[in-house]
Amino acid sequence: MKDLKTALSENAEAVNRVLDDLLVLGDGPESRVVEAMRYTALSGGKRIRSFLVTASAELFNVDKGQALRVAAAVEMIHCYSLIHDDLPAMDDDDLRRGNPTCHIQFDEAAAILAGDALLTKAFEVVADGRTHDSATVRADLVLALAKASGDAGMVGGQMLDLVAEDHELNMPEVTRLQRMKTGALIAVSCEAGAILGRASENAHHVLHTYAHDVGLAFQIADDLLDVEGNEKDVGKKTGKDAAAGKATFVSLLGVERAREQARLLAEQAASHLDIFEEKGKLLQDLAYFVVNRTT
Amino acid sequence: MKDLKTALSENAEAVNRVLDDLLVLGDGPESRVVEAMRYTALSGGKRIRSFLVTASAELFNVDKGQALRVAAAVEMIHCYSLIHDDLPAMDDDDLRRGNPTCHIQFDEAAAILAGDALLTKAFEVVADGRTHDSATVRADLVLALAKASGDAGMVGGQMLDLVAEDHELNMPEVTRLQRMKTGALIAVSCEAGAILGRASENAHHVLHTYAHDVGLAFQIADDLLDVEGNEKDVGKKTGKDAAAGKATFVSLLGVERAREQARLLAEQAASHLDIFEEKGKLLQDLAYFVVNRTT
Repeated sequence: MKDLKTALSENAEAVNRVLDDLLVLGDGPESRVVEAMRYTALSGGKRIRSFLVTASAELFNVDKGQALRVAAAVEMIHCYSLIHDDLPAMDDDDLRRGNPTCHIQFDEAAAILAGDALLTKAFEVVADGRTHDSATVRADLVLALAKASGDAGMVGGQMLDLVAEDHELNMPEVTRLQRMKTGALIAVSCEAGAILGRASENAHHVLHTYAHDVGLAFQIADDLLDVEGNEKDVGKKTGKDAAAGKATFVSLLGVERAREQARLLAEQAASHLDIFEEKGKLLQDLAYFVVNRTT
Repeated sequence: MKDLKTALSENAEAVNRVLDDLLVLGDGPESRVVEAMRYTALSGGKRIRSFLVTASAELFNVDKGQALRVAAAVEMIHCYSLIHDDLPAMDDDDLRRGNPTCHIQFDEAAAILAGDALLTKAFEVVADGRTHDSATVRADLVLALAKASGDAGMVGGQMLDLVAEDHELNMPEVTRLQRMKTGALIAVSCEAGAILGRASENAHHVLHTYAHDVGLAFQIADDLLDVEGNEKDVGKKTGKDAAAGKATFVSLLGVERAREQARLLAEQAASHLDIFEEKGKLLQDLAYFVVNRTT
């Protein structure tokens, strides 16, 4: 069995190839929007969400090429959310993955449109017959991705985050915010593997619980990096939450308890996957990787 | 057979009811984004795109409730595009359908998110089992809507429009721009009826040709309104194209030839539908309505 580091980098390479194929530069002047889409979608990143898709799909022996199309769609949704979140009217960030953000590199209009088009493209890719022979699987994937990404998921979480700037959140509120803002897309990434593999209800449920814990652990680790990481390693501005007076897991629990909580969540996440035995190993390792990462 | 005016207003009422049902206000602070979605999606409008969905679905005896869900999804996509196009970084408009635009009524962040969530919701609604028993139909609808809305359709057209501000377009370029920016969504609205009704390839083709002509006629009428309409009637700022020095059908052809061209396109569009005999009457009337409208 390959180790997680190899598996992650193989996934990233494979997803990049698929994204490169799917985001086709035309020759009209409107191809500027595709340039902006490619600029962000192909700018690297650990590709953890797409890894969750391909690794969970592997549990059910899903065709690799099909899983990669869904993995690429999930990265498109993730990248669209980064582009829009970075806009001046939102988090107003200049730096992302060590590079100028999309609206700095292009302009605000191109960035808004590139985000819109990436979101749209994600649904186009998933609905396409090449993603799965079964239209039921494809429609189910669209439905799950849309629910996780919309006003009851990721977009709602971002709205909550913006509203929260005006009043201090408590622990349940921060948990809810993060579950919507980052947790929902992480959870649906795991679920996508189960949908592609027509998994049993129980396997679905197990992956959902795993994803829920990993999502929270991921966010706590993110909050820790915002406090302890440096901008160069992390590839984006750090210390932002404290500067904005935002309640985070770290501000509410303190560094030590937050780290302990993340570790416990990783353990718990990994234990859910015991039913998959050896096959679940990579996803178990990922749970620990997510909390121990330094970037 | 009911007349077009009655049919249009019945469609608008029915679509508004469905939109009202689908855009559910929660009680968390994130419901601000749903308020912004509802603000624009329920702000009226002639609902021509959704009418194209329901009227073309009627040609194939599609269940009315199912057609209305797709009709509502198309209006969500249209409204998302209005919200984003009106943003300061894009067309910077304060007025839409006689009301303050979404970012004026709320703020830019809420407007960006409301647009994102409307687009996402459209795909959620279409992929949902309640939209059609056949998952193939649902996946095909998602695919068609995504293709029409993304970088090769509506978003690409908007990008082209922004790029065009820097250099004067000729007639084929303006036609291509408008076909992408407004034509693609109008065309897919008609196609949606054919997909829902599992229409023959020929019926598909006929509707596509009709939609293509209507889309262009619609845009020429829009350009004429920008020149000849007044802000109060039209419900948005007029005279914008000339002020921006933008090439339009009217600036390229002159008012008279543009009006004649729109009339010819409407006639041509209507004639395509002769094969549907009496059943095609409403859509034929719509083609003329689109070019004769004053708002």
